[in-house]
Amino acid sequence: MDDREQAHRLDAADPLAPYRDRVVIADPEQIYLDGNSLGRLPATTADRLHRAITEEWGEGLVGSWAHWFDIPRTVGDLLGTTLLGADAGEVLMGETTSSNLYKLAAAALDARPDRRVIVTDDDNFPSDRYVLEGLAHAYGHELRMIKADIDEGVSVDDVRAAVDDDVALVSLSQVAFRSGALADMEAVTSVVHDAGALMIWDLAHSVGAVPIDLHSAGVELAVGCTYKYLCGGPGAPAFLYVAGELQSQLRQPIWGWFGQRNQFEMGPAYDPVEDISRFAVSSPPILGAYAAEEGIRLIAEAGLDRLRAKAIALTSYLIELADAWLTPHGFRLASPRDPTRRGAHVTLHHPQAWQICQALIDRGVVPDYRTPERLRIGPAPLYTRFIDVYDAMHRLREVMEQRVYIDYPVEQARVT
Amino acid sequence: MDDREQAHRLDAADPLAPYRDRVVIADPEQIYLDGNSLGRLPATTADRLHRAITEEWGEGLVGSWAHWFDIPRTVGDLLGTTLLGADAGEVLMGETTSSNLYKLAAAALDARPDRRVIVTDDDNFPSDRYVLEGLAHAYGHELRMIKADIDEGVSVDDVRAAVDDDVALVSLSQVAFRSGALADMEAVTSVVHDAGALMIWDLAHSVGAVPIDLHSAGVELAVGCTYKYLCGGPGAPAFLYVAGELQSQLRQPIWGWFGQRNQFEMGPAYDPVEDISRFAVSSPPILGAYAAEEGIRLIAEAGLDRLRAKAIALTSYLIELADAWLTPHGFRLASPRDPTRRGAHVTLHHPQAWQICQALIDRGVVPDYRTPERLRIGPAPLYTRFIDVYDAMHRLREVMEQRVYIDYPVEQARVT
Repeated sequence: MDDREQAHRLDAADPLAPYRDRVVIADPEQIYLDGNSLGRLPATTADRLHRAITEEWGEGLVGSWAHWFDIPRTVGDLLGTTLLGADAGEVLMGETTSSNLYKLAAAALDARPDRRVIVTDDDNFPSDRYVLEGLAHAYGHELRMIKADIDEGVSVDDVRAAVDDDVALVSLSQVAFRSGALADMEAVTSVVHDAGALMIWDLAHSVGAVPIDLHSAGVELAVGCTYKYLCGGPGAPAFLYVAGELQSQLRQPIWGWFGQRNQFEMGPAYDPVEDISRFAVSSPPILGAYAAEEGIRLIAEAGLDRLRAKAIALTSYLIELADAWLTPHGFRLASPRDPTRRGAHVTLHHPQAWQICQALIDRGVVPDYRTPERLRIGPAPLYTRFIDVYDAMHRLREVMEQRVYIDYPVEQARVT
Repeated sequence: MDDREQAHRLDAADPLAPYRDRVVIADPEQIYLDGNSLGRLPATTADRLHRAITEEWGEGLVGSWAHWFDIPRTVGDLLGTTLLGADAGEVLMGETTSSNLYKLAAAALDARPDRRVIVTDDDNFPSDRYVLEGLAHAYGHELRMIKADIDEGVSVDDVRAAVDDDVALVSLSQVAFRSGALADMEAVTSVVHDAGALMIWDLAHSVGAVPIDLHSAGVELAVGCTYKYLCGGPGAPAFLYVAGELQSQLRQPIWGWFGQRNQFEMGPAYDPVEDISRFAVSSPPILGAYAAEEGIRLIAEAGLDRLRAKAIALTSYLIELADAWLTPHGFRLASPRDPTRRGAHVTLHHPQAWQICQALIDRGVVPDYRTPERLRIGPAPLYTRFIDVYDAMHRLREVMEQRVYIDYPVEQARVT
């Protein structure tokens, strides 16, 4: 295994290898392992946005709204039908994951007025926890926290033990932001629905990395972002999904004019459309949606089955190298060892992870740090090579052997 | 007055004339009078975004968040200190006008828990009315509608008659979206605050067109957009303003992680910072914020005093021509005649306004239509010439004289 040629052989056999040329690699010496935080720039995106800016805005001016109006739905349809197992008309692009979660969660609470409990887990993404905490505060509800295993994630049994007939809403992440643990979406959703509650999945760390079939998993509500595996760019628009049959039954709390029937009649009272646009609020971010579309197209073309196979191979290879090279230096795997229970990133625990992370970045390897004491490594399968994983782990081993990390300050930064 | 040379003379004397070259004029034959809906593309924006995409995203990757984190505040500071009369640290860029109104309005209602009335006017922008209606519904409050004069706007007396000691919040637009009527911000704010209520101003149709001094007007809360006079592009990020002394007293309802103290500690409970960032939710739209910044810089450089003087001159000239040429054809001014009571657009009423608008667009003049039966004409002062106003009104006169509009279908479109 301690064999750089093996990595080259794995790359030579990789059917997705050509996709590395479809993204911008500005610095070929840098090993970027943070595609789970901010995906690389697709090769087509800069030109696409330049055209949109100069032609659609600069030339077309306000007349371009004739097609801009449809973008939240057309890009949503592309995402939903190619990567989420949704039908057209079930996914809407726009806003942020947090604000979409807020809207859907409030709608869910209003749809279960006799129930007074919201369930999530104490290791869910912070913004999700805070949004739900705010809603619990506003509604006078209980926020019931599943105690999660921060390395292994939330199990079906955890969820079963937390739900009862007072639970209105459960919200969890499909892939845990820290450990990468992959939840059993279908089984959890079934347990929640059997208890009469609504369930919202956060797909931020799974969309574009894991095959998702919302319909066959029985999922009714979901949110997610496009700036990670979907390569939509910094602050790219998020999305929300509402199963068709549920749409007209839910009403979200921010009654904006983009959800209004006959919007330009500008009538006296809010009267939302029946379809997915009732979850819209106001003017969609056109440039951001185009950037997201380029990334979605690229991921859809590469294909989730191939991406998933490669993600498992890359992360398994990474774990093999970590076991052999890093365990002697005090590292321990902080992700599920079973590849079917992981998303596309791997987390390693070490008491000096913060310092080690800074030392690695200075040596041209970019993972990120997550509390507590964890190095999070995301070899995004679209553009990461096996040789990148080999070299990164090798450099990490050198950092440990040479103990260069001890000179770095103990301090936490604000890197997404 | 029926004198095209006069228009040329006015343009020759216009100190802002050089600024027309600072925006993209893709079709010099088209007369664009809808800058109050979507501002033109500044000449620098496409390159600025291309650099941000290729250098900051493509090369800098996740490391660019080191400065991206500050963008909602730095661009907010630029806007606040140059165009709003705010201090640094009082304006935050992001989201949409509607979602910002929702957040500030909910915060205001929570800050006045013993009061149960929200006041707005029945001609306020639809999305504002709907957002407030939704909050009234959620809180079980009364939504009290001032009956506005849709051509003259809301007067101080109207507001005084509507507020009492059960009013928690008043929200109005500084410039009415339909008529362009300019409210007396200082007097209205004073009446509302004297009644013990909070006041939120929507600056969407005034920012970049009218000198605004939020501090001297006693304004504590405001929202607005950047895609109109500020030329930020389609779906550009909006902004919110909260006066410094009020910030720590208000808590908005969407408890996102970008408002969290020590965000990357990812602590167990929401604990918002004390400053303007407590009104943030999640990842800001970086590309959109850069586009907005280009437009804000350009407007700030041109200077609001000069822009205001030119807007008054342009709209007064437009009204003179309308009086002379269009009144005989059944048009009537549907905006305040007093220029100190108007923003930067003018609205004309005609029973066939929809058809006339379509005929004009086909003849290279772009205003927009607003219900009921109104042609809305926005000669944005940054780049609109007097000759544009002359030619547009002349062409409108021809449309009326030749009655070409009667062949157009009677139908309403969805143009912002």
